[in-house]
Amino acid sequence: MGANMARRLYECGQPITAVFDVDPAAAQHLAAEIHTTAAPDLKAVTAAADVIITVVSDDRAMKRIYNGGLLTRARGRLFINCATVTPAVHRWVEQKCDAKGASSLEACMASSITQARQGSLYLMCGGKPEVFERAKPILEKLGSALRYIGPAGKAAEVKALVNMVMNANTAALAEGLGLGAALGLDLTMLREVFSQTGARSGVLQTDGEDMQNREHSCYFSAAHAAKDSGIALKLAKEQGLHLPLAAATKKQYDRLIKEGLGELDKSGIAELTFKGRHATPG
Amino acid sequence: MGANMARRLYECGQPITAVFDVDPAAAQHLAAEIHTTAAPDLKAVTAAADVIITVVSDDRAMKRIYNGGLLTRARGRLFINCATVTPAVHRWVEQKCDAKGASSLEACMASSITQARQGSLYLMCGGKPEVFERAKPILEKLGSALRYIGPAGKAAEVKALVNMVMNANTAALAEGLGLGAALGLDLTMLREVFSQTGARSGVLQTDGEDMQNREHSCYFSAAHAAKDSGIALKLAKEQGLHLPLAAATKKQYDRLIKEGLGELDKSGIAELTFKGRHATPG
Repeated sequence: MGANMARRLYECGQPITAVFDVDPAAAQHLAAEIHTTAAPDLKAVTAAADVIITVVSDDRAMKRIYNGGLLTRARGRLFINCATVTPAVHRWVEQKCDAKGASSLEACMASSITQARQGSLYLMCGGKPEVFERAKPILEKLGSALRYIGPAGKAAEVKALVNMVMNANTAALAEGLGLGAALGLDLTMLREVFSQTGARSGVLQTDGEDMQNREHSCYFSAAHAAKDSGIALKLAKEQGLHLPLAAATKKQYDRLIKEGLGELDKSGIAELTFKGRHATPG
Repeated sequence: MGANMARRLYECGQPITAVFDVDPAAAQHLAAEIHTTAAPDLKAVTAAADVIITVVSDDRAMKRIYNGGLLTRARGRLFINCATVTPAVHRWVEQKCDAKGASSLEACMASSITQARQGSLYLMCGGKPEVFERAKPILEKLGSALRYIGPAGKAAEVKALVNMVMNANTAALAEGLGLGAALGLDLTMLREVFSQTGARSGVLQTDGEDMQNREHSCYFSAAHAAKDSGIALKLAKEQGLHLPLAAATKKQYDRLIKEGLGELDKSGIAELTFKGRHATPG
């Protein structure tokens, strides 16, 4: 995801002074492609740029980079954090940045690789309003829709809710199509009926055909779906809320990971609901 | 629902020779409104008409009318059954009708009262193709989209799947908005973000604002939602399929009924997921 955002910025003519990845080969490959340098460590990233965009996989990776050199001589720098992580981690990052005289903004993406590549991401931003204004010129190159949600952590909350509902709709769709297949129904017909009735949804458009055809090339992995539903469930627990659909969804995605299918696209959840697709019974 | 279909047919100039309801007062009221007669019993309904449209509440009611006089002197009659009942019951009705020299068609409605009133129902039909052709002229007055699905029971299967997925999406949406409210998020903003991301769905459009505003006037009751998810789960069980989202949804709707809220609209499920809306903890 980060690489595709870098490619997009490069194509927009935005000067990119350095790229970094935990896998040095990946960073070097990308650096060559977009004519920049691969920074040897996080300290060098911050030294090379005024604005640093981060896209990590989870809370732990986020803490690791902010404790691991990214904030060295960070005064005046602007950090834009695009990963879907726990809201509390965004608040922690803002405090760390404030203490160093740097600024931070969360810019949660409600879209995927294709949109990153085209600069049409839907970006939900959380942080100080003046930091949002400062980040705008770059964000506008990445996203076609920018939305300021509120203080640090608030965009991550909205993002967690978006993905929690999206994942549950995905899991439900997989059940509908799986049962339809078991009943011998024509799934192309069934999807069309769904699209014209109360069963219609965004995931029907993005994942329905893929579920039917077992086309699970990864745009948004099952493992990420499990993580994001997990973030939402953690928030719910803190609020004393019981959310059985979100819990059932998380359980299905956890099961998919356990079966070694976590790197499939989220549509891969249909592997669990179609008869005979996957050996282990539910 | 049946009354609104009758009103629509009346407005279209379709001769209506009799109406019937288990509540005689309701039938008499409707009969006066659309200038027809209230039949004293089911036998009289069949005696009065060539085509009989039935809309009952569940499997038991369906068996009761077909065992309770509706098939008396039924030769040549066409029965169009619009209720969402178990596919097996539609097959049973077709056999009963065949034995009497009558015809039957299932015409499952994937829409609600407003659409019935406007003649814009989405009708999924199951039965013999020639019976579908015979029913068409009347169905076209009721529905803007007619779809022939297959033999008796097949339309009910599709309908059960539509409602199973719709109900799960509804339950998931109620969780997303409930958690959003608990986190202090602006729900109008949250719904807008949902509508522009992977969380978008038909039920977001039809039920999202109602959940926010606790506007649960009944279009499609929670009790019906529980029933329809139950039909789908029964089909799944027969197929040996485990559908955790559908099961969690059914459980939520059953809980709503148990709390005395079964006659709310299906959007009423949000009463269970918003903090402080309903006293009993989950």
